[in-house]
Amino acid sequence: MNAPKISRRTLERLSLYRRLLSDRFAEENPFIYSHSLATLVNVTPSQVRRDIMVTGCAGNPSKGYRVSDLVMAISRLVDSDGPEPVILIGVGKLGSALIDYVRTRRPHLRIVAAFDAKPMKVDRDVLGVHCHEMSELEAIISENGVHSAILTVPAQAAQDVANLLVKARILGILNFAPVPLHVPTHVFVESIDLTSSLDKVTFFARQEVERTDLPASEDPEN
Amino acid sequence: MNAPKISRRTLERLSLYRRLLSDRFAEENPFIYSHSLATLVNVTPSQVRRDIMVTGCAGNPSKGYRVSDLVMAISRLVDSDGPEPVILIGVGKLGSALIDYVRTRRPHLRIVAAFDAKPMKVDRDVLGVHCHEMSELEAIISENGVHSAILTVPAQAAQDVANLLVKARILGILNFAPVPLHVPTHVFVESIDLTSSLDKVTFFARQEVERTDLPASEDPEN
Repeated sequence: MNAPKISRRTLERLSLYRRLLSDRFAEENPFIYSHSLATLVNVTPSQVRRDIMVTGCAGNPSKGYRVSDLVMAISRLVDSDGPEPVILIGVGKLGSALIDYVRTRRPHLRIVAAFDAKPMKVDRDVLGVHCHEMSELEAIISENGVHSAILTVPAQAAQDVANLLVKARILGILNFAPVPLHVPTHVFVESIDLTSSLDKVTFFARQEVERTDLPASEDPEN
Repeated sequence: MNAPKISRRTLERLSLYRRLLSDRFAEENPFIYSHSLATLVNVTPSQVRRDIMVTGCAGNPSKGYRVSDLVMAISRLVDSDGPEPVILIGVGKLGSALIDYVRTRRPHLRIVAAFDAKPMKVDRDVLGVHCHEMSELEAIISENGVHSAILTVPAQAAQDVANLLVKARILGILNFAPVPLHVPTHVFVESIDLTSSLDKVTFFARQEVERTDLPASEDPEN
């Protein structure tokens, strides 16, 4: 089906509803009320109802939504019809872990090719995905009808590779390089910045330690 | 130094400024103006100046900030004084990639122990980090003065492990499990949801394809 115009936040929530409701949950609870789902996700019930309206799934006033119908409606909206081809650039440890993640957890996506600038990485298979040299990027994207790329290259290479991807008509980039990418507005970029996330967690944990208990070695007069 | 009260967003930006200004940049540009930094990061110059004020780094009205001073001031604020002990729970491919990431890119952090519920993973070293069984969690956290944890366990295990971490007085959690964690408000949680990010990138890329070129096989009358 054609994807309707929906916002980044709505898509995030729909993706989350689907995950929470999958498999085991549906076996134990065939129906769910919007307010129960809202509690699980920490949003308001009316937000949940607005989000679900986008999927076309109708609830039952007395029982709520049928969980299996809701999961299917979200999948119809969020996933592509067939397996969706994706490429990955930068086959280090993180890149390899992501190849594994997609294969085991996102069966509707398929990493059709990997790329690396290092000659020693090229022409090898990584968990069943062949690694090509960068010069083959544009041809492979075009041949496989690829629109989305996962970028796990070092920070200093990220913008150059992003430029190549844009030139090859990639429209969505999942960027793990810890730098902001400058791309045209029609290209959707989602950045995951492990460095900043690690900095935040350790900083705020330390701040809480300092707030609650002054180390024994410290002079309380200071 | 004691960490002043600063917001999550401010810390994210400071972390980003530091990364953009490191190493090679400082060699080529000993000074930077707030408006140049603002352009690199896509924020306003006054936002940059407010953020930097928190670090105590003073600019020079005619030359801007000395890059080496600024990087040092941010590091003094964001990083701990010594190497900061961190633990990781869930030693799959993603967990192993993160052990490698911290070791090579975050030298001021040190993963002092890993944990896994699977007996076959326990009592092995993963990239130099020893993997323990879950029953040792509380003792190792306490012995090593650990306040931060990286959580790379399957979704269905995440809340139970988070409960154990809270009980063991962990104050910051970097959560890769694709479920929201329910923890007391004094515990800082940063969640990285790879599933939702992959869903978003492929969805919005596909939406852009559909917006710009109707597939040839489709009847333009519909």
